[in-house]
Amino acid sequence: MSHKPRILITNDDGIFAPGILALREAMMEVGETYVVAPDSERSAVGHAITLSDPLRVWEFKRNGEFFGWAVNGTPADCVKLAVKAILQFTPDLVVSGINQGANTALNVIYSGTVSAATEGMIMGIPSIAFSVASFQFKDFTYAKKLAIQLSRKVLAEGLPDGTLLNVNIPPVPEEEVQGIRITRQGRGRYEEYFEKRTDPSNRVYYWLSGTKVFVDTDEDVDEVAVAQNYVSITPLQFDLTNYQFLTELKQWGLERNGKSSDS
Amino acid sequence: MSHKPRILITNDDGIFAPGILALREAMMEVGETYVVAPDSERSAVGHAITLSDPLRVWEFKRNGEFFGWAVNGTPADCVKLAVKAILQFTPDLVVSGINQGANTALNVIYSGTVSAATEGMIMGIPSIAFSVASFQFKDFTYAKKLAIQLSRKVLAEGLPDGTLLNVNIPPVPEEEVQGIRITRQGRGRYEEYFEKRTDPSNRVYYWLSGTKVFVDTDEDVDEVAVAQNYVSITPLQFDLTNYQFLTELKQWGLERNGKSSDS
Repeated sequence: MSHKPRILITNDDGIFAPGILALREAMMEVGETYVVAPDSERSAVGHAITLSDPLRVWEFKRNGEFFGWAVNGTPADCVKLAVKAILQFTPDLVVSGINQGANTALNVIYSGTVSAATEGMIMGIPSIAFSVASFQFKDFTYAKKLAIQLSRKVLAEGLPDGTLLNVNIPPVPEEEVQGIRITRQGRGRYEEYFEKRTDPSNRVYYWLSGTKVFVDTDEDVDEVAVAQNYVSITPLQFDLTNYQFLTELKQWGLERNGKSSDS
Repeated sequence: MSHKPRILITNDDGIFAPGILALREAMMEVGETYVVAPDSERSAVGHAITLSDPLRVWEFKRNGEFFGWAVNGTPADCVKLAVKAILQFTPDLVVSGINQGANTALNVIYSGTVSAATEGMIMGIPSIAFSVASFQFKDFTYAKKLAIQLSRKVLAEGLPDGTLLNVNIPPVPEEEVQGIRITRQGRGRYEEYFEKRTDPSNRVYYWLSGTKVFVDTDEDVDEVAVAQNYVSITPLQFDLTNYQFLTELKQWGLERNGKSSDS
């Protein structure tokens, strides 16, 4: 491209999070950066968008300098609003993160970080979601290097229509990273339970908790790669059709033409 | 099964909505019904779950009789909480709806209705999402008949692991329904814009709006079938991996073993 690439940056941990600061620093090496992010944490919001409330935008400073725009919405809202109302141009790349906590296996469907990249993808913009697989690990040195390398590659090569990259980085220093793997989404999930508690007014409430259930063992699965200290890069798409079962379902005799009967 | 099938019913329009009343009436023909649904509308919440707030449960009456449990959470929260805390047994079927408004094409990824069925599917329960493709059409007569027929079929046949059914019903009386088609998810989406407005305190806010962009014309696509007044039944799964591009991505030379370099 002739101009410097223009990069939209967002996340789901909120505009205050250390991960988005790191991602912006990395992207400043790659092009012009524009931050539009939620004004507070929006984890596990899935692909939510805000239809029933107005969205508001604030200019947000960090260390006394303009850092970006804060929005009272979800990550998907931020991408829509950035492109359609705040920036009023289509960026060359959308990056989301750097999230604290893995977005692998079934967690992907709950992920605000991935939903922002999905929204970019829907708008026809190459999009990448970055996560470090730990809530505690705060050393983004290696994650930043990887984000720079991969963003440049995606800007050069493009991505197929309807496809985004979901990147998960092991929470270890660079010298302990074992490599990079192209992976598929695993099937692992949380086995959930609710803690039943009583508030100070004696009313019952429930708090969701859970423990991870590992299902996969193949090395080419996202969460297996990360557990082995590999970076996992998974190409995702959003045709959810189960084509294999579709063929079987056609044998159920449900299909008909003409007026339905009670059979 | 030896016992009467036990059916969990939820939605995203909220426990007050006419659609969930219709679905419960239909399911009473099929088995024992248990309603656990959001206490207010949660449309376009995607696959959100509530991690940062406590969930509360109320017993909810309709026409003076116990109707079900209302939860201050999302549709996915309702299914989790129902199975793990309220019912404390695993139902034989999860049904979600009857939603007002189509959940077809790319809308599926924003859909709270589908997310509830997805949550059931993740828990290993056969699950079906029902939507009528109109915000106005309130005649659920045909939708109820279809829900009874399809639920019985799914209870008898089961569904493959990791697969749910997404059903969209045209908003017309039964005699105008042209038939039933097994379909795939389309690629149509909304072309969005934001209305910029000023509130009474002179502060700017944005409201999301959009117009539907139709992309597909094949008869076996969900929204094409509905537009032709066919019921659309799409089997969905949540492995989002783009396997075709995965092969190409492996040619990018990103993968490596051993310590990463700056190349």
